Amino acid sequence: MHTVLLTVGDEILLGQIVNTNAAWLGERLALAGADIQRSETVGDDRVRMSESIQRATADGAELIVITGGLGATHDDITRDVVAEVFERALEVRPDVMETVEARYAARGRRMPPANRALAEVPAGFDVLPNPKGVAPGLWGERQLEDGRRQSIVLMPGVPYEMKAISEASVLPRVRQLGVDEVAHRSLLTVGMGENDIAERLGDLTDLLPDGVGLAFLPSLGVVRLRFTAKGDDADRIRGDLDHAVASVREQLGDLVFGEDRTTLEGAVGELLVAQGATLALAESCTGGAIAARLTEPAGASRYLRGGVVAYCNSVKIETLGVDPTVLVLDGAVSETVALQMARGVRERLGSDIGVSTTGIAGPSGGSPEKPVGTVWLGYVDAHGEHSVRLRLTTDRMVNIGLTTTAALNLIRRQRMKASELSVLS
Amino acid sequence: MHTVLLTVGDEILLGQIVNTNAAWLGERLALAGADIQRSETVGDDRVRMSESIQRATADGAELIVITGGLGATHDDITRDVVAEVFERALEVRPDVMETVEARYAARGRRMPPANRALAEVPAGFDVLPNPKGVAPGLWGERQLEDGRRQSIVLMPGVPYEMKAISEASVLPRVRQLGVDEVAHRSLLTVGMGENDIAERLGDLTDLLPDGVGLAFLPSLGVVRLRFTAKGDDADRIRGDLDHAVASVREQLGDLVFGEDRTTLEGAVGELLVAQGATLALAESCTGGAIAARLTEPAGASRYLRGGVVAYCNSVKIETLGVDPTVLVLDGAVSETVALQMARGVRERLGSDIGVSTTGIAGPSGGSPEKPVGTVWLGYVDAHGEHSVRLRLTTDRMVNIGLTTTAALNLIRRQRMKASELSVLS
Repeated sequence: MHTVLLTVGDEILLGQIVNTNAAWLGERLALAGADIQRSETVGDDRVRMSESIQRATADGAELIVITGGLGATHDDITRDVVAEVFERALEVRPDVMETVEARYAARGRRMPPANRALAEVPAGFDVLPNPKGVAPGLWGERQLEDGRRQSIVLMPGVPYEMKAISEASVLPRVRQLGVDEVAHRSLLTVGMGENDIAERLGDLTDLLPDGVGLAFLPSLGVVRLRFTAKGDDADRIRGDLDHAVASVREQLGDLVFGEDRTTLEGAVGELLVAQGATLALAESCTGGAIAARLTEPAGASRYLRGGVVAYCNSVKIETLGVDPTVLVLDGAVSETVALQMARGVRERLGSDIGVSTTGIAGPSGGSPEKPVGTVWLGYVDAHGEHSVRLRLTTDRMVNIGLTTTAALNLIRRQRMKASELSVLS
Repeated sequence: MHTVLLTVGDEILLGQIVNTNAAWLGERLALAGADIQRSETVGDDRVRMSESIQRATADGAELIVITGGLGATHDDITRDVVAEVFERALEVRPDVMETVEARYAARGRRMPPANRALAEVPAGFDVLPNPKGVAPGLWGERQLEDGRRQSIVLMPGVPYEMKAISEASVLPRVRQLGVDEVAHRSLLTVGMGENDIAERLGDLTDLLPDGVGLAFLPSLGVVRLRFTAKGDDADRIRGDLDHAVASVREQLGDLVFGEDRTTLEGAVGELLVAQGATLALAESCTGGAIAARLTEPAGASRYLRGGVVAYCNSVKIETLGVDPTVLVLDGAVSETVALQMARGVRERLGSDIGVSTTGIAGPSGGSPEKPVGTVWLGYVDAHGEHSVRLRLTTDRMVNIGLTTTAALNLIRRQRMKASELSVLS
């Protein structure tokens, strides 16, 4: 099913907002069987938007999914433009109006009169309820001149509203429409760059069955290996994918930390839960980013006791017990301080594991011996102590991201060893 | 200058990666005078990519900016496709080859033979040096049949390489090409929703000079008001913009925390630096997210002493001094605990200001009295104590984001009062 995504909004086109909707929809629609050919963004411009729908139609689009421009202000043009292209009148639907008014009433507020526009629906379109907001989604269909049917889906641009409507209504309906099966699987690796992984895998034609593609997608220290297979025989493509994933996984060993939707923080969390181990963090250059990553998944309280963001030296000394003499002699960015921070937070927060970061995130603050991008990680548990020196980039946010990934991987590798030790003992 | 952005890569189309490049380029190119008409994403597919370039050309594109697909693996097709569409031969450029080899040599490594592809340049194209990676950018021009000139720019997809090449080479050259001036200004607000702001502003035609547009861009508690003006008289449009921004700013008073590229964390940081005040954070439900936000800008050590991520109750008791009886009687998510956390972190980290968060981020853990989305913020400084109860959503990441914004705004508002007090005293 030839599919085109269309995102509407000056704020997206001019980069005031990053287009996370296109990414989320691209992934979910592909998994639901849509064959996504293009994703396009246009501004709040009637002519450009109308052209985009007509161009997608001329290209053969059987499904057009539009997000944005469904509010009630003057630059919300999506309803109008689609009604015009599909040659349908806009009708105020009383049931939608009631829902919108009820939402305002529940918050003790009167509906602004302009919001009447939210209840306008092109004739014959289905209304898709919005569990998290006032503007409903819309689904329309038409017969094209060449006999093909085309579906068009309209959703608001607010990400959590769009996701709620997609999950409740759009994705199930797309799955029913699907003809060709497309299947994706991913392996997630950490600790080796994409080129080295490719070299280690050698000739891919030996590893992958015909019709299975493999892409390397690096992102801040994590490389996603995405396998894709497409065809009309669902069982065969799933079997091919399983075979390819298993072969590559065997080659890569414990570089692989998970599959598909696993995140590194999720994998580390599960490992700690399985071991009944608790963690505490002492963060300097990452400034809380590791704790924030680890608490993104729900249930982090099962293994994360907490952390200390030790951004100034006095917090390192007083809250974590770092020796002031060592701070002077070795400097805050040193192996000794990293280990003292990890020991201190482990002891004071009463956790099994203590992990620390101290480094020069940049853009300034470097010296010839310790250039920007120099970071020390510390790790302490009952089995021993480890430290890692990183030499990163000159970009502050890249350095914070790479340090976070390296710290999570340090925990993962040490705890994998710990579990081998306990099996041996 | 009619401009089309083209992002290449299955990983973007299928949502494995969010397209931050399009946002960054959209904003920077528009500020450099490019008139961005569309942004498009296609997969690693020669036919689709070639069609996109031809379609953009047919639509009147004078500048096409392509990111992605410039590496040296089999799915890096951009160089080939552009050479074909522009009818140029690919030539290995010895100077580029030397640069690539030197980069490997500097890291003590031999260049993989496949990377020879990185030195292939379509005949007549200019090479744009890549300060942060091996694949250079490329800039080509051609005369179209109708006499128009068209420029095409190719850059790698790795965001920090793309940004470095853009800033060093692409944006300056685009500025030289520009004909029509486009100017943007933004006001950033926090503490009021977009609809209420619009109502407060009333009839925009009274506030805005002819030819100045205004868009409302909400994002996790912050609303950006973007003003746009376009024309051939640079002085006039800048004057109109200044006038519009000043009028709206006056109407909105201290809802406005900054202009253009200001971030809320940056504005809070500057306020604290100006006051010589220091801050410490006690985070429960935000899990380090506030500290991570505050340390994104360089120089946060001037006002952020640090923080405690108190994810479990024993850390609240032992590291922050929360009364265990209160934890039992009032529960961890309560006004009393929020204030005790803020007092505790202020005292123990020796800062002027203590700020805390405790809440139920979700998706589970709620009760009828304290549903998911219930959050208490605590604030303590020498002038007094404040607490705020938030009633947020059922979405974990939205709740963490909104709580972070609300906490930053609480600091901002209390410190603005503090500075009024010190002026009065």
